[in-house]
Formats: sequence, structure tokens, C-alpha cells
Amino acid sequence: MHVIDVNIPQQAYKIAIAAPGLDRLGELMSELNLGKKVLLVSNPAIFKQYGERAIASLQAAGFDATSCILPAGEQYKTLTSVQKIYNAALEKRLERSSTLVALGGGVIGDMTGFAAATWLRGVNFVQVPTSLLAMVDAAIGGKTGVNHPQGKNLIGAFHQPRLVLIDPQVLQTLPAREFRAGMAEVIKYGVIWDAELFVQMEQSKRLDQMRYLGADLLQNILNRSCQAKADVVSKDEKEAGLRAILNYGHTIGHAVESLTGYRVVNHGEAVAIGMVAAAQIAVALGMLSSEDAIRQDALIQKAGLPTQLPTGIDIEAIIDALQTDKKVKDGKVRFILPTQIGAVEITDKVTADPVRQVLQHMRSVGK
Amino acid sequence: MHVIDVNIPQQAYKIAIAAPGLDRLGELMSELNLGKKVLLVSNPAIFKQYGERAIASLQAAGFDATSCILPAGEQYKTLTSVQKIYNAALEKRLERSSTLVALGGGVIGDMTGFAAATWLRGVNFVQVPTSLLAMVDAAIGGKTGVNHPQGKNLIGAFHQPRLVLIDPQVLQTLPAREFRAGMAEVIKYGVIWDAELFVQMEQSKRLDQMRYLGADLLQNILNRSCQAKADVVSKDEKEAGLRAILNYGHTIGHAVESLTGYRVVNHGEAVAIGMVAAAQIAVALGMLSSEDAIRQDALIQKAGLPTQLPTGIDIEAIIDALQTDKKVKDGKVRFILPTQIGAVEITDKVTADPVRQVLQHMRSVGK
Repeated sequence: MHVIDVNIPQQAYKIAIAAPGLDRLGELMSELNLGKKVLLVSNPAIFKQYGERAIASLQAAGFDATSCILPAGEQYKTLTSVQKIYNAALEKRLERSSTLVALGGGVIGDMTGFAAATWLRGVNFVQVPTSLLAMVDAAIGGKTGVNHPQGKNLIGAFHQPRLVLIDPQVLQTLPAREFRAGMAEVIKYGVIWDAELFVQMEQSKRLDQMRYLGADLLQNILNRSCQAKADVVSKDEKEAGLRAILNYGHTIGHAVESLTGYRVVNHGEAVAIGMVAAAQIAVALGMLSSEDAIRQDALIQKAGLPTQLPTGIDIEAIIDALQTDKKVKDGKVRFILPTQIGAVEITDKVTADPVRQVLQHMRSVGK
Repeated sequence: MHVIDVNIPQQAYKIAIAAPGLDRLGELMSELNLGKKVLLVSNPAIFKQYGERAIASLQAAGFDATSCILPAGEQYKTLTSVQKIYNAALEKRLERSSTLVALGGGVIGDMTGFAAATWLRGVNFVQVPTSLLAMVDAAIGGKTGVNHPQGKNLIGAFHQPRLVLIDPQVLQTLPAREFRAGMAEVIKYGVIWDAELFVQMEQSKRLDQMRYLGADLLQNILNRSCQAKADVVSKDEKEAGLRAILNYGHTIGHAVESLTGYRVVNHGEAVAIGMVAAAQIAVALGMLSSEDAIRQDALIQKAGLPTQLPTGIDIEAIIDALQTDKKVKDGKVRFILPTQIGAVEITDKVTADPVRQVLQHMRSVGK
């Protein structure tokens, strides 16, 4: 078992990476001095595959565990779904010492975390991420939330988990497109924080399906990505400064996701597009060498991720949407721009013109 | 201007008591390094009386201020109302540095605070309470939330205001029944924390309408109640221990409110009933002298507050409802019981029997 410490003041917790790990959920939770009642939240497909093992592990450790199943998909990441968790929490008579466990991808984790943050003004929360994206990103750091009809994650709270349990074996059932979406965040860590991880991925012949990765590379991807995220959020829980670098690729990425109704590209694909755009903007502003931008784009393509905008998207609409991004401060859009592989800077000096030019070059050709 | 410091780690803020204070809102907020955008939330009646002065004060200080008006009443303290604040925040394009100002009683304050806690994962929040209850209790300490159809304040978050501005002059338009509801919380501070405040109120001939109070007593009531609340929440923001004493009278009070559909008694009246019950339970357990219980009940009556249960309420239903209270821990109901005027203890050793007996004695006679 590989353990990573997240050292947030008053809320330190561990990320445990263990294969198989699912059967140790109850054992690891029983070290945390939690109340007896546990409500496990999942979606139908994930619960069918892994729910029974998780519940059995909890019960073997003496927990009084039941489940709440929500429909799968980003379109259900709403206050309405959270209300279903509230209703289950009420029916189960959860107490402040009780625990909500999220067994699923980022959507289940974000909603369950938000319910945990707000039920009785805060109950315990444990993350058991089942997608690569959730393992290396969403499950760590305490950002929880749901979508507003007009914007992603606009409603939310910071609420740290008491434990993140990652079982790499569950990735075997992850669809290839979702695996690639997770790889976008892994490539992000290489660009913003960990040049060595970046080089390790460059040396792999293929990155577009999990079965092409060596066992060592998969382990490094999980360990180093989780370590990068833990390092950053430990230094800046509430995104006062440093943590904003994790939004690399997300500024334009969110706009692309939102403007295509969250149906054309998934989150990872949108982040890949956003990283390509951000690197090009950095090149245009003389902050990054075009060689480094080419290296990044090559890695994104090797991971089977898009480097062009979805067909038909309105570039002016993207520029307008940037204004409603959570990262806006006094009307200025903050961009995270790379300066070399492994390092980024935060700037609010990017005007609309270079953004427009870069996006025009990223339009799909001939489609 | 009387200023009380609330010293919560990383979130210190001031309670400013000033008459007139409303016109100084913008000036006091401009000392806090907030963003330009302000969304003021209120209800129709309060906004009609005081909204223009508040907005004018904000604009004079350079803020870009607009308003969001919600229907008045506890029955509207719901996620649906909070969604209206979210919509206004989106339309106004609030940023993380923006501020939500609550101008109103506890319902407006709790909902606005919850919206501030959860919009963009937290924006700034300022409380301008207009009821006595909100001034001495709800506006201080960072508890925010809304009701679940099956229980009060079950959905919420801790989110401290950046400033609490109390203008005693607005109490002149407060209906007498709402004034008395606030007095229930003031009497609570006397019983749990401040015996001198209790004696000052004993010395007043009448307490049931504001016009019968001397100017000194009103000022003391505001200053000492806010100080008591600030002292307690500074020592224990998240209700790990000490803060629970503020729930004196609330355990049974919440059950009474809930079982009568929040329509028969208001919050203060329910707390008064709860305090009478708690003191009688303390007497039954030999923790409190019957003399002190009589003194408390006399003060409650002098404030025009009820000391008997509402007609027709089912005592077994109250006992059952105690189990869904947020204060339940591992199935045990925690009671806050007085040991003398000015001091209370927290106990989970109260069984159903003495509760049942005390409640049977508190049934309305001859109604």
C-alpha cells in the first residue's frame, strides 16, 4: 500500500493506493474514530460491479452501512440529486459523526462531498474514486459541488475527505474514453509540476489505453499525480494563490464544455483542448518556447485526446463565457500559462486578442 | 459605536452596534478589502423600509450594489429560495471577491449565508440583522442553512460573516411578537452565561414590549447578548463542545416547532417552552434548585412568552422527534441543563422518563 499525506491544517488525511484496496475500506475507516452509520453513494453500474464488496468490507468492520444509488452522468450533477442524498440521510437518521462514502467517478464524488459538506452543516466524508480522473484529481483536495443550469460547479463548498482510497484494479473496467479523460489531468501534472512524470510518459510508446501502459508507469502515474495534487492543496487549500495552477487548461476547457452542453467533449477532452490553447497563448506572449508547446501537444495526441476545437463552436461565445468563470477577479480573467515543461505562471494580463487568434487556429479543419 | 470582536481563527470579524448604523454600511464594508460587486438580499417589507438607505450607503462607498428580494417567512427558508439567490448571483456575475449582504431577520440571514457559503464555493458575507432575534443570535457565529421538508436547518454550512452591523433603531418597526421572540434568546444568555444580564432584566418592570425597556437596558441587552455569543463561538466555532450550550432550550424547542408545522409557535416561543422544560428536567435530576427554575420561568412570563406546551401536541411525538435532532450522537440525545442562573452543563444521561413527566406537567390546562 502506497500512502500519501495531505497536510491541510486541522484536517490532515491520507490517500491510500492499494491493489486490491476495495476490501480494505472498512478496515481503513475504522482507524478514523467515525460514528457507526455509513451511507454509501454510487451509481447503478458502479454499484453493481463494486458495491457489494464495499458494503461487505464496511459491515465486517462493524459499520452500519446502507446505500443510495443516483443516476449516472454529468447531467445529474444537480441540487435535485443532492436532495436525494439528503432524503436518504434523513431516512437513515445520520448523525454528525456519521459518514458519507462516495463510490464512483467525479460526479458521484462531487455530489456526495457537497451533501456531506451541507447535511447537518457537515458530516464525515470518504472518497473511493473509480475513474482515473477522480483518482488523480477530483477525489483529492476537498472541492465539492454541483452544476447550475448555466454553469459547471457554480454551487459548492470546500469539504475535505477523511480518507481517499484508490484501488487501481477497478480501472480494468473503465471505458477507454474515460481512461483518456483521466490522462489529460495526468499530462497536466507533468506540465505544471512534475517534468519527470512528463518524460516518463513521453517514453511510453502508447498512452491511449490502459493496457498499453507498463505496470510501473501506471503506478507512477497514480503515485506522482496524487502526490502533485496533495502537495499543491496542502500549501493552499482554498485557492488563495498556488492552487490556481491546477486550473491549467480549465479556463478555456470549462467554456468549451459548457458551450457544447457537456455532451460533445468530456471534461478531460475539454482540458486537453484548454491546455493546447493555453500553451499557444504562452508561446504568443513569449513566455514558452514553441518546442515545449509541441512536446505537450504530442503527448496529448499520443493519449488519444483532441487538440482542436469541436466543430461549429462560436469563438466569441468562448471569450464571453470566460467572464463567468469562477477564476474571474474584478472582471479580469486569470490564465495559467506554462513557462517550460514542469512550471507555470498565473497571469491576469491576457487580453482577448491573442486568445481569439489562438482559438481561430484551433478550429477543426475540413469537418 | 460599540464594537465586539469575534475571534475565530483565520476569520476574525467585528460586530458593530451603532444607532443610526444603516447609513454607515458602505463605510464599514469599505474597510474590509472586498470586491466591488454587492448583492443585497432582503424581503419585500424590510426592503421597503430600509433597502434604499442600505443601497445608497453602499453606492456612496463605491460599491456596485443591486438587490434580490425573497418572500418573507420561515416556510420560504428552502433550497428553492436559495436557488433564486444563485440565479441573481449568476445574472450579476458575482466573483469570489464579491459580497452577499443579508438585510433582514434570521430567515434572510440564514439563507443568504448559505448562498454565500456555496456560491463559487464561498463568497463574502455581511449580516445586517433587522430583528432582535437575528441581532443577538442568528447573525453571529456563522451558522447558515435552510430547512428540509422534514426538519429545520438540516441543510447548512458554517460560513462566518465579514461584518455584523446592528442598528437598534430598526427595532422600532419590529412587531411586538417578534420582539418577544428575540427576548427568549436574551433570557437564554442570562441563564447559560451572564447572571448579571439576568438580574438586570429581573429589575425591569416589564419586558414584553420594547417601549417598556429603558434605553440603558436595551443597550445592555444588545451589547451583553452579542458579547456572550461572540465569546462562546470564538472558543468553539464548529460546536465540538462549548458551543452546544447555545442550544439550551432548543432541543425540545425544535421538536415543538417542527411538530406544530412552524405555524403555532415561533422560534423564540418554542425556545421559551424548551427552557422551561429543560429547567424542570434539571430540577427533577437534582441539578438545579427549584428557586432558580422559578426565577427563570418568571422572567419568561414577564417577557410575554409561553411556559406551556401548545394545545393538542403529542408528547410521545416530541420524544420521538428528539432522535432526529442534529445534536444526537450515537443515538443519545444531548441536553443542555442549567445548574444555576448563569451556568449550564451538557449531558447525554437524560432518559425518556423524566422528559415525559416534565412535558406532561407542561400541557396546557383547560384549553
